[in-house]
Amino acid sequence: MISNDTPRLYIQEVSARDGFQMEPQSIPTAQKIAYLDRLSLTGLAKIEVTSFSSPVAIPTLADAEAVVAGMKRAPGVVYTALVPNLRGCERALATAIDEINLVMSASQSHNLANLRMTCEQSLAQLAGIVQRASGSVAISASISTAFGCPFEGAIGAARVLDLVDRLVDMGIQQLSLCDTTGMANPAQAEELFAQARSRSPAVAFTAHFHNTRGMGLANALAAMRAGVTRFDASLGGLGGCPFAPGATGNVCTEDLVHMFQAMGCQTGVDLERLLLIAADLAGLVGHEVPGQVVKAGVATRRYPFPGAPERPHATPVVQHAADRQ
Amino acid sequence: MISNDTPRLYIQEVSARDGFQMEPQSIPTAQKIAYLDRLSLTGLAKIEVTSFSSPVAIPTLADAEAVVAGMKRAPGVVYTALVPNLRGCERALATAIDEINLVMSASQSHNLANLRMTCEQSLAQLAGIVQRASGSVAISASISTAFGCPFEGAIGAARVLDLVDRLVDMGIQQLSLCDTTGMANPAQAEELFAQARSRSPAVAFTAHFHNTRGMGLANALAAMRAGVTRFDASLGGLGGCPFAPGATGNVCTEDLVHMFQAMGCQTGVDLERLLLIAADLAGLVGHEVPGQVVKAGVATRRYPFPGAPERPHATPVVQHAADRQ
Repeated sequence: MISNDTPRLYIQEVSARDGFQMEPQSIPTAQKIAYLDRLSLTGLAKIEVTSFSSPVAIPTLADAEAVVAGMKRAPGVVYTALVPNLRGCERALATAIDEINLVMSASQSHNLANLRMTCEQSLAQLAGIVQRASGSVAISASISTAFGCPFEGAIGAARVLDLVDRLVDMGIQQLSLCDTTGMANPAQAEELFAQARSRSPAVAFTAHFHNTRGMGLANALAAMRAGVTRFDASLGGLGGCPFAPGATGNVCTEDLVHMFQAMGCQTGVDLERLLLIAADLAGLVGHEVPGQVVKAGVATRRYPFPGAPERPHATPVVQHAADRQ
Repeated sequence: MISNDTPRLYIQEVSARDGFQMEPQSIPTAQKIAYLDRLSLTGLAKIEVTSFSSPVAIPTLADAEAVVAGMKRAPGVVYTALVPNLRGCERALATAIDEINLVMSASQSHNLANLRMTCEQSLAQLAGIVQRASGSVAISASISTAFGCPFEGAIGAARVLDLVDRLVDMGIQQLSLCDTTGMANPAQAEELFAQARSRSPAVAFTAHFHNTRGMGLANALAAMRAGVTRFDASLGGLGGCPFAPGATGNVCTEDLVHMFQAMGCQTGVDLERLLLIAADLAGLVGHEVPGQVVKAGVATRRYPFPGAPERPHATPVVQHAADRQ
């Protein structure tokens, strides 16, 4: 029974990076900072605040330094930023960021499309970044397309586990297995995380799912079954998948926290406060976002008993005395 | 591991009842019949085709007899219809329907709001219906608000299990536990179904979830973990929850089938054919529906490699010889 097993879970918010990078309109730096400052007070374990990418490639995150410099740091929160290359690493090290999050894809074609490098080139570059940054900041790494590649299809677990080994050999102890385009299913998620944890028990694995095909929360549940306690998620389900137009994006943070808390798991997150920020998100980005708990209210929400039956099926044929139970 | 456990699952389609009854505009009878005839050829185990409710209460389903008379029956499909009272039972028995699906709520207030009866009155009426219909048609029953009531809040498992006992005592061997307003969480779903199955091993239990708070597929996964093999779902996620305006409705059939099949479970459903019908659903009901696989494509969908990097992070700093792996 899940209900007898209530591990402490750690929620890692990625909307300011994985979400904002997908937005067609740049969000003003001051609004990003105000948004991050609100998020910092909700009990999230980690917040990915930006990406030190080329401003030409991702202009909406060109203000990375200003965001890190401007945000108020809350105790207990790890602030991380994506670092795609050595140049980004240098930029990150010049800020007060706690952690850099390196990235490469499990599939050759996605790595080429996304990073303009082969996987081997990425591995070499990551080794260089680790050498440069070790001792200065914490280092994590994300393996994209770990559950499938939109160009190549299925990605074997052996390929992902081999990359895990190579990143661990570099000294990286925090690894995200990322379902970049929402291809994972719960059986696969449980299996891959179980194998990875069994093979590298010292590594802190993060489950990073997208809800592209509606399986985001089911996959998170399956990863939790495999012992994963760290989950990336994006407020409002912000983010997306450029290869699946019209589909929803990352797993929605507040929906994920709501599910885990309803199950009796400790997340450390103040859901009510998180929902207030989520309710303002559509205004911030200028369009509706997919999160559902904001729309429906939490499961414990109570409604007034209707004055009249709201959808009566019929009047009773058999009439009894008042029910006494 | 889920992946080592691939039970045969049975998908029961409820959109023509649970979905259409929520639609503000009536769908013409001929279009309902054409829709059901397409569904009949997809391998669904059961189709709930209508409700024999008062035409005053649910005018959009007033054509129940005409629908049952007009649809083409496919071999292997069980055709069922909701029967809220004795009058509805008489109407159903005058048709060629295979099964009647009785209904009552676990909570007093929801039963009063929905059926204008106390739970005890409902139980007495259900006993009368069973007596009348036994031997003529198969009988199933649905327990609404089994995972929570929008008026009363939490519903104890003991209350639901007591109702299960009482319905089984009447001779009913097919029972749906229904999360009418999307309040269930996976821990609760697994626990309640495990208890119910353990207590009444001869009963065929159906899991009926709504996706109101995004947990529909996760709850289905949890119910499957508890040994449930029958799942109600609604094409496109049609349906809804009158007490949670703006929220999505039933678990989406094609998204559920897609998840189960991706996990290696046998559903008997031709997903490709189902998706073609789902793609036409918005046209039939006149508005967008929440299903996600129709929008994103199946997880095995492949995309052409982009001519140029679609979202490059940066140009590589370290250049290596061509990757050989």
